[in-house]
Amino acid sequence: MNKLKQKILAEVEEDLSEIETALRENLNPHFDLVRETASHILFSGGKRLRPLLMVLCGRLCGYSGDYDKIFSVVFEYLHAATLLHDDLVDGASLRRGKPTAHSVWDNSTAVLVGDFLLARSLSIGTETGNLKIIRIISEITENMSQGEIRQLMRKGNLKLSEAEYMDIIRCKNAVLIQGACRVGALIADAGEEEESALSAYGFNLGIAFQMADDLLDYTSDSGTLGKNVGADLKEGKLTLPVISSLEAADPIDRDEMEEIIKNKDFSLRDFERLVEMLEIYGGIRYTKHQATRYVEQAKEAISIFKNSKTKQILLNIADFALSRKH
Amino acid sequence: MNKLKQKILAEVEEDLSEIETALRENLNPHFDLVRETASHILFSGGKRLRPLLMVLCGRLCGYSGDYDKIFSVVFEYLHAATLLHDDLVDGASLRRGKPTAHSVWDNSTAVLVGDFLLARSLSIGTETGNLKIIRIISEITENMSQGEIRQLMRKGNLKLSEAEYMDIIRCKNAVLIQGACRVGALIADAGEEEESALSAYGFNLGIAFQMADDLLDYTSDSGTLGKNVGADLKEGKLTLPVISSLEAADPIDRDEMEEIIKNKDFSLRDFERLVEMLEIYGGIRYTKHQATRYVEQAKEAISIFKNSKTKQILLNIADFALSRKH
Repeated sequence: MNKLKQKILAEVEEDLSEIETALRENLNPHFDLVRETASHILFSGGKRLRPLLMVLCGRLCGYSGDYDKIFSVVFEYLHAATLLHDDLVDGASLRRGKPTAHSVWDNSTAVLVGDFLLARSLSIGTETGNLKIIRIISEITENMSQGEIRQLMRKGNLKLSEAEYMDIIRCKNAVLIQGACRVGALIADAGEEEESALSAYGFNLGIAFQMADDLLDYTSDSGTLGKNVGADLKEGKLTLPVISSLEAADPIDRDEMEEIIKNKDFSLRDFERLVEMLEIYGGIRYTKHQATRYVEQAKEAISIFKNSKTKQILLNIADFALSRKH
Repeated sequence: MNKLKQKILAEVEEDLSEIETALRENLNPHFDLVRETASHILFSGGKRLRPLLMVLCGRLCGYSGDYDKIFSVVFEYLHAATLLHDDLVDGASLRRGKPTAHSVWDNSTAVLVGDFLLARSLSIGTETGNLKIIRIISEITENMSQGEIRQLMRKGNLKLSEAEYMDIIRCKNAVLIQGACRVGALIADAGEEEESALSAYGFNLGIAFQMADDLLDYTSDSGTLGKNVGADLKEGKLTLPVISSLEAADPIDRDEMEEIIKNKDFSLRDFERLVEMLEIYGGIRYTKHQATRYVEQAKEAISIFKNSKTKQILLNIADFALSRKH
């Protein structure tokens, strides 16, 4: 485990353990099938990044009640619901090194338990009686669904532009993390300035995390990553390292890259050749550069808050986006 | 078309056409894939029962604004979202005589477009800024998802009890129609007495409609029904006509019925034999009797309203539940 991660974890240990408890307790009253399937995806080594961010942002704005952990499960449920449907849509067989829910159970179970988690998020959100919070949850849901559909429509499309890629990760990833941070401000009754600062922090962090995630497909081995080698490509997903390298490549190399990408049964050798091209044409470098830029923007966004232990953790989490190995 | 249906349709013609317009206009700004897939399920001969009920219940309580049709799409979207996921879960190949969405497109599309329609419902609901309405939508969503999961868990279970069956159709069907009627009262700012009367009307009507629907599987030919012969049984769904006949049957006949049910490839002859048993052991009669009872309760519930054209339509719709052929 890298040092930054160790440091963050040591500081949020108690929060994380309370979030775990809230996640388990909220699932307990439900049927076995929901509990088992939802637990499979919820308790398989997820980072709890989204609930944690909500809790930390609430604290940064002075929240001191005891409802934050309970409410934070909304953001893990929304995340897990998307993963359940997403893995099915992608035909992914592994997530975090474990077989995906639709391969352990079946498509039906993955669909319905995803629906259930979405419905639960909504119910918990509605219980707050806070219209602004409810609107955020509804926007997240609509954006995530639009992002998924855009991604599906562009699956295998070798002409995917950087703008289209950005639009997809904005909808699918950034809006959720942004919402979690913004809701943190809202439960603390923070002012508009704090709310929009944390909203910007979350948005930029969400983009950076996804770019870093997309990089890992080309810079990490599958054992560390817990998915199959070249999983994104096999699922027909073009991400920034590939998009920007394809744009920069000369015609002959681009043809070679496209051949590898189009052939879903590419060999490990083919994949290594592709990664070499991503190095040559700067796709990996460019993606790292962009992710770094978003991390900087995330950190800059919270400069309005005075220094505190909580602020430091948020800054560390932003830096962690760039340093993680899986 | 039966006379009652003709009569109802003549009286709600304008409402239905405005609901159609609202449904189309709401879909127009969205991507082709959503529009096509959603249109496939939305514009394939659905009755628009749910939005229509919302509009009529609003009018009964004195609503005279112009937001009702736009808002009523929520209930058709929620319905369509469930159908998309439901057909996938059931592996159903036909709905209303047309191939189901997941067979025309694929599982991924059906899942994501269902998610999208659910998210849209939520957004439209949230736009009202009315917490009571938002809570109802959230309850509907949670109930429908729980009903689906319960049904999935009990799929093929020959020991399904009448109480379990009632619980499933309550969650999956009645709560949505109940919610549509109740929201009609709410948009009209009706008093609590009206709200709970229409809530009871909708609940009882929803149960009656589903029982009538379940009966059609055993009393209608597949041409009229637009599904395959014995579709419910082939999908492992035990409904009231079968449940109550199994309970009443003597051991030998019960064994024979169970053999037919367990063999998903039953012949037309087997199916006819089963229907004969449902006649002998009173399952069809009992279901008709129960559906009639719920229709009477629905009508009784709105006795607090003074007579009007709108009330008469609601009474006719309740009677129609029992008389429809598909």
